[in-house]
Amino acid sequence: MTERGTLGVAVIGTGKMGADHVRRVHEVTSGARVSAVVDLDADRAKQVAARVDGCTAHTDMASAMAASDVDAVLIASSGPAHESALLLALEHDLPVLCEKPLTPDAASALRVLQAEQALGHRRVQVGFMRRFDAEYVKLKSCLDTGQLGRPLMLHNRHRNAASPPFFTSSMLISDSVAHETDVTRWLLGQEITAVTVLRPTPSANAPDGLQDPQFVVLETEGGALSDVEIFVNCGFGYQVQAEVVCERGTARIGDGHAMVTSMAGRWGGTIAQDFVERFADAYDREVQAWVDATRRGEVTGPSVWDGYAAAAVCEAGVRSLNDGGRVPVELVERPALYG
Amino acid sequence: MTERGTLGVAVIGTGKMGADHVRRVHEVTSGARVSAVVDLDADRAKQVAARVDGCTAHTDMASAMAASDVDAVLIASSGPAHESALLLALEHDLPVLCEKPLTPDAASALRVLQAEQALGHRRVQVGFMRRFDAEYVKLKSCLDTGQLGRPLMLHNRHRNAASPPFFTSSMLISDSVAHETDVTRWLLGQEITAVTVLRPTPSANAPDGLQDPQFVVLETEGGALSDVEIFVNCGFGYQVQAEVVCERGTARIGDGHAMVTSMAGRWGGTIAQDFVERFADAYDREVQAWVDATRRGEVTGPSVWDGYAAAAVCEAGVRSLNDGGRVPVELVERPALYG
Amino acid sequence: MTERGTLGVAVIGTGKMGADHVRRVHEVTSGARVSAVVDLDADRAKQVAARVDGCTAHTDMASAMAASDVDAVLIASSGPAHESALLLALEHDLPVLCEKPLTPDAASALRVLQAEQALGHRRVQVGFMRRFDAEYVKLKSCLDTGQLGRPLMLHNRHRNAASPPFFTSSMLISDSVAHETDVTRWLLGQEITAVTVLRPTPSANAPDGLQDPQFVVLETEGGALSDVEIFVNCGFGYQVQAEVVCERGTARIGDGHAMVTSMAGRWGGTIAQDFVERFADAYDREVQAWVDATRRGEVTGPSVWDGYAAAAVCEAGVRSLNDGGRVPVELVERPALYG
Amino acid sequence: MTERGTLGVAVIGTGKMGADHVRRVHEVTSGARVSAVVDLDADRAKQVAARVDGCTAHTDMASAMAASDVDAVLIASSGPAHESALLLALEHDLPVLCEKPLTPDAASALRVLQAEQALGHRRVQVGFMRRFDAEYVKLKSCLDTGQLGRPLMLHNRHRNAASPPFFTSSMLISDSVAHETDVTRWLLGQEITAVTVLRPTPSANAPDGLQDPQFVVLETEGGALSDVEIFVNCGFGYQVQAEVVCERGTARIGDGHAMVTSMAGRWGGTIAQDFVERFADAYDREVQAWVDATRRGEVTGPSVWDGYAAAAVCEAGVRSLNDGGRVPVELVERPALYG
Repeated sequence: MTERGTLGVAVIGTGKMGADHVRRVHEVTSGARVSAVVDLDADRAKQVAARVDGCTAHTDMASAMAASDVDAVLIASSGPAHESALLLALEHDLPVLCEKPLTPDAASALRVLQAEQALGHRRVQVGFMRRFDAEYVKLKSCLDTGQLGRPLMLHNRHRNAASPPFFTSSMLISDSVAHETDVTRWLLGQEITAVTVLRPTPSANAPDGLQDPQFVVLETEGGALSDVEIFVNCGFGYQVQAEVVCERGTARIGDGHAMVTSMAGRWGGTIAQDFVERFADAYDREVQAWVDATRRGEVTGPSVWDGYAAAAVCEAGVRSLNDGGRVPVELVERPALYG
Repeated sequence: MTERGTLGVAVIGTGKMGADHVRRVHEVTSGARVSAVVDLDADRAKQVAARVDGCTAHTDMASAMAASDVDAVLIASSGPAHESALLLALEHDLPVLCEKPLTPDAASALRVLQAEQALGHRRVQVGFMRRFDAEYVKLKSCLDTGQLGRPLMLHNRHRNAASPPFFTSSMLISDSVAHETDVTRWLLGQEITAVTVLRPTPSANAPDGLQDPQFVVLETEGGALSDVEIFVNCGFGYQVQAEVVCERGTARIGDGHAMVTSMAGRWGGTIAQDFVERFADAYDREVQAWVDATRRGEVTGPSVWDGYAAAAVCEAGVRSLNDGGRVPVELVERPALYG
Repeated sequence: MTERGTLGVAVIGTGKMGADHVRRVHEVTSGARVSAVVDLDADRAKQVAARVDGCTAHTDMASAMAASDVDAVLIASSGPAHESALLLALEHDLPVLCEKPLTPDAASALRVLQAEQALGHRRVQVGFMRRFDAEYVKLKSCLDTGQLGRPLMLHNRHRNAASPPFFTSSMLISDSVAHETDVTRWLLGQEITAVTVLRPTPSANAPDGLQDPQFVVLETEGGALSDVEIFVNCGFGYQVQAEVVCERGTARIGDGHAMVTSMAGRWGGTIAQDFVERFADAYDREVQAWVDATRRGEVTGPSVWDGYAAAAVCEAGVRSLNDGGRVPVELVERPALYG
Repeated sequence: MTERGTLGVAVIGTGKMGADHVRRVHEVTSGARVSAVVDLDADRAKQVAARVDGCTAHTDMASAMAASDVDAVLIASSGPAHESALLLALEHDLPVLCEKPLTPDAASALRVLQAEQALGHRRVQVGFMRRFDAEYVKLKSCLDTGQLGRPLMLHNRHRNAASPPFFTSSMLISDSVAHETDVTRWLLGQEITAVTVLRPTPSANAPDGLQDPQFVVLETEGGALSDVEIFVNCGFGYQVQAEVVCERGTARIGDGHAMVTSMAGRWGGTIAQDFVERFADAYDREVQAWVDATRRGEVTGPSVWDGYAAAAVCEAGVRSLNDGGRVPVELVERPALYG
């Protein structure tokens, strides 16, 4: 690793997802840097590399993985290109974050599994990002406390405003419901043992020939049922909802609320217990915004004038509290610096 | 700045807030590092510094601000200590993020204002972190679109489960309502011209002699009213709510929902339009979790087995879609590596 | 009273509210009938009376109250006409339901009070209908259980889409906030001891010269505060909201939800415990719809065909439950009678 | 019919549902009276009849239906007893409201269907009361406007806190899901063509041997899917939810909210447009409460004192509005009459 243990990452693929991951590692992630990018399209690779100081561009995965400042690999190329990238990274014994799907079919996924087993230790994390979503994390935590009892059913809704032109009926399963297969396995901690796909009459707004929506029933080894409405031309937006039905209550996410449980005669959610919990993200964003502006040589955010005005208002407030009645706030004239 | 422009930060104060900011800059923030910590308590400073490679401990602000790897200052000491730290940082012409309050009273705030004016350019950001909270940011954006018309009133609720033992009646204003004074000024873009504090009968759960709750009415130069319920011994949790009432509708945050507007005969909120918007945070957390685990030499998150199982379920799903009926899912035996 | 104790009601005033009350007593209320209507406008009185079998029309309250089939009086004339109607009804010792306001000012209300006292027993119910609203009733019940502790503050919102042309700034208080004065007294069980009305800058959508919105603070003898936002040209609809803040939690109504409480770390509402509670209103409406249709000589609602189809589907369902798999539903051809 | 067209109703069955219907017709319904009750248990019939002036008790349906003051029949006996009651009522050509199920199986339902057809006109309304529930009515109206487009899927949840001891696995279908079969047919306006019942692992809280929960998939002639979670030992309460997924949006009821739609980038509900819409039920309940109290010789509800206090507060409010500042409210001493 580089100085102070910063992780050098090679990003494979610089399309939409890849470029976004380059931006993320570069601007958002703490403790990592983009050391190399790889794309068969040399121009695109160069353009993306140029945005990051010290990042090299490659058309060949092998040269990137061999570079001395590459400690880990983030695979964001198209699904069919994953297998060879994964096998090569395992050959180099490099840590990998691989966008979903691992590979497009079970046979190729099995080959990757065998390669990692041959290596003898885990190296690969698959990009099922819902496991990191705040709402899903809360749902999982709630289940893990056991307060709702054993899960019996899971109802999933997965809706996209519109599907891209290349989308096929099979891709509603392999590209979209793929997320719910992982969510089901992860939330319930059980393997899926059978699948049934039902075909309601397609929406008139779906492209000709596309079976959209579909209704999928997943059965698990523990006897739970997980049903999935997948509807990729719903028209009104992107909506992902999940409700777990347990022996003593249900928990639901995705309604434009925080998680809502139904339990012991009441529905509702939790209230934060302190400002650290409520405003944790705000503090993170505040400090990041300050660092970003400072590195750009700028000063943004609330100013000394804002701090002064707050102090003056609070002083007036304390006087009103102590003496009663309405107290005017006196401010000096606002300096041009804070115009 | 250090290599690759990483910002070296000196954190003044290593109490609860200071230590949390050290953790934040060290583990969460991209592009910054903690170069120095300062505390009158030398042991505490050393303990906190020891958590960060290359971080030095100081009991003297001046030595920290003079250090060559300090590019910026984060002030998290107690309010009365802010003025001297701010003046010294301005003397060194260093960028500052200063926890709220800027200073405890208007006179000292004015001295800081004059020092920054004398310097001739802005250097200080005040820590009103609500301006960085996702819900408040949405509320501000909504107002700024003008779709609701001009703001007429702002209703604020600010509730804590219980107040700390040292809390006085005045601190409900100067420590708590301080946030609403900034929120009012920021959301409405207007200075506050008068304050009235009303005193309902205190709660039996408030400490003896504490005037809790209080009801505060702020008037602005534009003729808007902003009322604040401050209740620091509400018992049930930490709850911050705000509703702006405008000429054509209202917008409200803090109900355990996303922002809800009432407008044109409907109440409700927006639906995300794509997965990037919906899962942006999840991607950020996923990559950070991968980087963190990798730097610790661990592999966590979804495994190759999870990727393989998803592929196998999706294959069965596509077969059910095409052929109809229930299709069993066949998996190889789970290797011990993924046990 | 008439046969079987049906209450004969004289309705005073046949304007919008009066005519609606005539319809209500005639078609909705059990155990009462409209025996007489009174209006200075003889034609209007006759028209309204003509809708009810056996109802007589009067221009003179005295003749109506003297009629042998009049057991009670419902006053729905304009506010200034209430006093004389109330005094006359008390003279006849007749039970009265009087639309709000009792009378337009305190002096005349006091005269009515004295007349009822002179009579020696209560005869008059005032039409503060919010006390009969399901949400307010739940809020009151919740307070009365004591689970939230003593009420400290009450926040009220009262919004109308637009005010009628004759509305004055004073009427926002005497016509609109009148409801919140009663709600405050009823919910808190305390008299109001002082009022402060604040005047934010009026909305551009309010008629010229109308002080709209207003913000009203009511103080009670127990030291509670009740604030009221009254905004009669809010543009988007009619919205009535109330939140009681108590020593151990809050309860809120009017958000397009059922009542929501915040208490002990959770926000949310109650879940019905059985179908009688959940569908009580549905049963009432079902039977009323059946009676109404039958009296008109009609048959509406779910038919025998609907009952037959349900039976056939359930039979197929039970077969699927017992034997597994998909079971087709067989129906006879739908007879023309149920077309 | 009796005087003024009041409908004389014979109630068949005086168990829990029957007795409740007797109470409803007697106390709630306008324009009807209970003329006769029928039960094989003569004592129970007599007890129930005794609660209603002029109501006769019968052990024999035929004598009740032949009574001169019986104009209509409400069947609330057990399901297996419905067929004979229905056939007899049709023989008398009497209007019938028959509790669900019409009869327990399709063959007997068909016999009733044929009897009504032979009569040549409809006489029977089946007690699917959800069609009269305010939330379902809104959902139906929303679908009927066409704003959401054609319905594609319907998701139903039907949960009871606990099942009675006699409940069998088949009854989850024939007694509980029976409601969703009617809801599906009514909301979508389509017959159901096939049923599949899936059996997740039963809850540990369900009685031994009871298959609870079940997951039911209904297919309709138009190609829509309606899925039903039926869970009669969910433990936490009675919960009935429905979401219709259409080509341009979804609409959902039963979440402890009013109906929520997702459409055109927004989720949410409607706001009432005036007080008549918002408080219609409150007015109905107010007048009924007044009539009921008056018939009992009592005076309840808001008193003249309440009217006087409101007038005094509003007067003070108008003074504060006009003159500014806080205005004390002056009340005379509260008379003992209103103690």
